[in-house]
Amino acid sequence: MQSGLSFQIERTCGHARAGVLRLPHGVVRTPCFMAVATQGTVKAITSEELHQLGAEIVLTNAYHLAMRPGHDLIARAGGLHKFMNWSKPILADSGGYQVFSLPALRKVTDEGVTFQSHVDGTTHQFTPEYVMEIEQALGVDIAMVFDEPVAYPADRTTTWASMERSLQWAQRCKAAHSRPDQALFGIVQGGTDATFRAISAKETVRLGFDGYAIGGLSLGEPKELMWEMLDICLAHLPEDQPRYFMGVGHPEDILASIARGVDMFDCVLPTRLGRNGAAYTSQGRINIRNNQYSEDFSPLDPACDCLTCRGYTRAYLRHLVKCGEILGARLMTYHNLHFYLNLMRRAREAIVRGSFETPQKM
Amino acid sequence: MQSGLSFQIERTCGHARAGVLRLPHGVVRTPCFMAVATQGTVKAITSEELHQLGAEIVLTNAYHLAMRPGHDLIARAGGLHKFMNWSKPILADSGGYQVFSLPALRKVTDEGVTFQSHVDGTTHQFTPEYVMEIEQALGVDIAMVFDEPVAYPADRTTTWASMERSLQWAQRCKAAHSRPDQALFGIVQGGTDATFRAISAKETVRLGFDGYAIGGLSLGEPKELMWEMLDICLAHLPEDQPRYFMGVGHPEDILASIARGVDMFDCVLPTRLGRNGAAYTSQGRINIRNNQYSEDFSPLDPACDCLTCRGYTRAYLRHLVKCGEILGARLMTYHNLHFYLNLMRRAREAIVRGSFETPQKM
Repeated sequence: MQSGLSFQIERTCGHARAGVLRLPHGVVRTPCFMAVATQGTVKAITSEELHQLGAEIVLTNAYHLAMRPGHDLIARAGGLHKFMNWSKPILADSGGYQVFSLPALRKVTDEGVTFQSHVDGTTHQFTPEYVMEIEQALGVDIAMVFDEPVAYPADRTTTWASMERSLQWAQRCKAAHSRPDQALFGIVQGGTDATFRAISAKETVRLGFDGYAIGGLSLGEPKELMWEMLDICLAHLPEDQPRYFMGVGHPEDILASIARGVDMFDCVLPTRLGRNGAAYTSQGRINIRNNQYSEDFSPLDPACDCLTCRGYTRAYLRHLVKCGEILGARLMTYHNLHFYLNLMRRAREAIVRGSFETPQKM
Repeated sequence: MQSGLSFQIERTCGHARAGVLRLPHGVVRTPCFMAVATQGTVKAITSEELHQLGAEIVLTNAYHLAMRPGHDLIARAGGLHKFMNWSKPILADSGGYQVFSLPALRKVTDEGVTFQSHVDGTTHQFTPEYVMEIEQALGVDIAMVFDEPVAYPADRTTTWASMERSLQWAQRCKAAHSRPDQALFGIVQGGTDATFRAISAKETVRLGFDGYAIGGLSLGEPKELMWEMLDICLAHLPEDQPRYFMGVGHPEDILASIARGVDMFDCVLPTRLGRNGAAYTSQGRINIRNNQYSEDFSPLDPACDCLTCRGYTRAYLRHLVKCGEILGARLMTYHNLHFYLNLMRRAREAIVRGSFETPQKM
């Protein structure tokens, strides 16, 4: 296990796969959902609670942590696991997307990106080599290559150029990456162009990584186009390595992606929507701010046995959220993470049983 | 136990008392600190965590809950205990202080106060009778009379008038209060006038309540004056009933008040300061935002064994607080409540041992 990673597929059901991903900090059963810990914390949730929820891996962001508190500081703390008190696996997004979306000023060359921090305006240059240095300093289990994403919609010239640059940067990331106890994933780009997607997938696989992510989708393109692009990417990725669909997504899209052969997911929806008062339930998504819940003394989801649903009513949660109380954000987030992680557990069980089916509508 | 309350003093040490307060929802060992749950939640903390922390009673606010979500709604939920998922005792402040500080428009007569809600601008009238209706609907263990506080500084005429009105309202509260499973506390007023304090205490005791609060202090008056007023009040209160010093305060003031014979306390400091990045430690109060903690990988308080101090470092907490992360507010609040509740436990143990002394400086 040179890269710190091994991956076995236990069972398949159609294209869906039930796998076991072994990483330096533990075992992750796939398909898996990675709760988003952008700034070194799953917003509003302690690591004790993540353990209770059955989370086996979380996702963080190299750009955010490099800006604040700094990856050097985290390295001196003994690495990100120790810093954030989370002993299980962590995947770090390289922050390509953030570098290209958050800073107000930015200059891109083949060498890298120069930009001003969105936190304090200081100037930084991110090159593929420097991003590898950051991710290695964090000591995460899985590092992602530094890429240049492309917005949707984009013209063919722009899409091609940024795909080409991403491939060059991926090669430099691989060359610069030296930490033997850390896996490195490549990212397939190519916008919404079928030909570019196939080229990007083939070239990324030729470079050779421990796993492959599909990036640059779920950015507002029509759903049909997203599935078409995903299928092209998956067709060119090795069967025996983990596949990660970045930033996806809604529960029904996750299930549909599992059915197509994706193993790993991350999304801000359960945490962000939770803080804003939306809850995923077995009866669909509800907004707890709605008047109809003001005297609803039943749990958020009658079919759920999480801490929130065991102790607190819709009426109380509505009161907390409407008052802007932190406890409201906490309890809603906890429930939504439980919903997502439970969804993955049930999907995996169904794959193992051989009865996994994509629901038509959630 | 007509009022739902019984109080026994187990031990004294000087003027300090170790008591046992029996209430409909459980036993409270005194001296006690009541965490503040203004809107039906101790900010950022679950009821499970309050149990872990060893909290035996919390304080809520009739004004806030009447404005939002409404005491009728809470009554239909089965009372405040059920609504907020807290099975142990609750004391409700009547909201006199809030009615006289939060609304922009307000008109006071002997009958009561007419004001506009600070939440939605709707017009309400609070009379002593109506406030009793609110507190009885909440179903709290201890209700407080509705009083008219006086700001500091205030002239003698104003102080006298509001003390007089508070006594009349206290009498009306007592007459209107009918819930047999709820205790009712009187509140001693009188500003910073020694004569008025003595009169208010004697008259309040003559009306006869289940316990007595000292209100209208710790509002910016010099410390010496506060202690003088407190001592006058305490001298006129019955030895065998609980005494509650409202809104106090700093740890050293709580200890000094215990030494003078106070049994009950509440204060927003541990929760409010926690959310803002200040922590109480065995080495004094620290502000976690300070630069000196940026690479301090020791716990908030090396002498503390709370969840926060067991798992998280100062450097991490500083990062969270500086990022405005909810988890920072949570972990800091949890630690501060642990500090306060532990302070009370240790004070009580010392009283029982006969070795309670007011520290000169904390």
